[in-house]
Amino acid sequence: MKVLMCVPNISEGKNPDAVERVIDQVRAVMGVKLLDYSSDPTHHRSVLTYLGEPQPVLEATKAMAAAAFDLIDMSTHHGAHPRMGAVDVVPFIPIRGMEMEEAVEISWYFGRFVGEMGIPVYYYEEAARRPERVSLVDIRRGGYEALPDKLGQEEWKPDEGPAAFHPKSGATVTGARFPLIAFNVNLQTEDVSIARRIADSVRYTKGGYRFVRAMGLALEGEGAVQVSMNLIHYIQTPIPRVMDTIRAEAARYGVNVTGCEVVGPIPMGAVVEVFKHYLQLHDFADDQIIENALLE
Amino acid sequence: MKVLMCVPNISEGKNPDAVERVIDQVRAVMGVKLLDYSSDPTHHRSVLTYLGEPQPVLEATKAMAAAAFDLIDMSTHHGAHPRMGAVDVVPFIPIRGMEMEEAVEISWYFGRFVGEMGIPVYYYEEAARRPERVSLVDIRRGGYEALPDKLGQEEWKPDEGPAAFHPKSGATVTGARFPLIAFNVNLQTEDVSIARRIADSVRYTKGGYRFVRAMGLALEGEGAVQVSMNLIHYIQTPIPRVMDTIRAEAARYGVNVTGCEVVGPIPMGAVVEVFKHYLQLHDFADDQIIENALLE
Repeated sequence: MKVLMCVPNISEGKNPDAVERVIDQVRAVMGVKLLDYSSDPTHHRSVLTYLGEPQPVLEATKAMAAAAFDLIDMSTHHGAHPRMGAVDVVPFIPIRGMEMEEAVEISWYFGRFVGEMGIPVYYYEEAARRPERVSLVDIRRGGYEALPDKLGQEEWKPDEGPAAFHPKSGATVTGARFPLIAFNVNLQTEDVSIARRIADSVRYTKGGYRFVRAMGLALEGEGAVQVSMNLIHYIQTPIPRVMDTIRAEAARYGVNVTGCEVVGPIPMGAVVEVFKHYLQLHDFADDQIIENALLE
Repeated sequence: MKVLMCVPNISEGKNPDAVERVIDQVRAVMGVKLLDYSSDPTHHRSVLTYLGEPQPVLEATKAMAAAAFDLIDMSTHHGAHPRMGAVDVVPFIPIRGMEMEEAVEISWYFGRFVGEMGIPVYYYEEAARRPERVSLVDIRRGGYEALPDKLGQEEWKPDEGPAAFHPKSGATVTGARFPLIAFNVNLQTEDVSIARRIADSVRYTKGGYRFVRAMGLALEGEGAVQVSMNLIHYIQTPIPRVMDTIRAEAARYGVNVTGCEVVGPIPMGAVVEVFKHYLQLHDFADDQIIENALLE
């Protein structure tokens, strides 16, 4: 069974009825499971999370976007969060039984659909067609307000849709990326500099693992510190490797790990990798897990 | 979602058509997933494995048993495996979202169904109503051939059905038990006595963990030895505790663990326990695993 997740961010977070009408488009598609949604009035933004087989997820995303483009007018939109369009960012995330390439293709199908509505589209992350468009931050710089100017530049010609400003809907960024795992390690010390040094030992930008973002911080009032991480590719930089490095670095300072946290969702594949690593299982097959028969 | 597994053993292993007719009764029940089946002509015996919600699994088991009682005549049955009846042993195994007590109740429903067909029934393991009937080996001693004599003794009065010999169908043993995990640890030594001593350190009968059966054996031709185990209650005696004890004992002899094996099926709950243990996760919730949303 293939499982694709989609986590669209739309620029409506104040009107619950409007958000409900957008979400109803997802609920209406058979084979798509809505996992979560939340609206932030300050950011004037909502995030949806749903999953299913790739085709139904694509259909749900098209219907969801069409409703959002209909309901949202960016020319009157104000919010604290950086944004470019009514359907602002649409990442497709392969969870199970599918390669990244297939998620990329789905995002391109979705991009063409939006482009054909006359709305400029940029592809990011794994779906990017230019290296300077991999990072969402780079694409989104200047936000909706900068679009009229950017769309006149060859450098910011959209990947789909016309190179023309669309006042009502702005622009959409879509693409594919790996599931991100939020993983924190708590350390038995009050010295936040130790957490920072350990974070540096694993974070990519300081010479650590390629797919780790990390920072050290104090847990206020708990007399403890934390290495707080985003693991952005659990296959190439697996959790146990990061965990063991942190334990070894903590031992340098005579500091114990008191516990860890996985914040939010985690794919079963990442759980199984941890299981296989610490039990030294070299030939374990996923279908040995009894419940997997029910997923197929 | 509740998941109950059933692994009936029936006394027909030579006639594939007859086995198919029995299995078809399981296939015909909506909501029941047939995981596996195998027939052994020497044992003249077949084993089915299927799972689903408790009610459909009970219905499938009743239909399966009725077909087997119809097709199998124990008065002409010969096989190498010890057995007492046409539907010989029927364990119900709680896999997910249900307590042992509920699996016990299901086995009692099934036992009453068989008893009402005029066939003697004994309850074993967690469903046993007398301590001397907990062990299948104890109940089955003497096999089918001993039944006419045993059924005349007060001690062997059946839990359901008449205390009268049923020549065609024999007797049925049913009950509930935990899923059993076959777990082996390979050691980098040729000295099998080390594997045996380590097996003794964890096995119940030698003072080890309550829910561990273990033995040490040589892996012929591989220049290695193995601690081969059945873990019969992964919640009360979890895998990591056994693993860590074996690693510590192996270190006494300066012997390394080269790898481990899980043989056959394992419940997802056992996988998640290993994940939580080695990552020191104290507050992990099963529904953080993305695919679990699809199981619900």
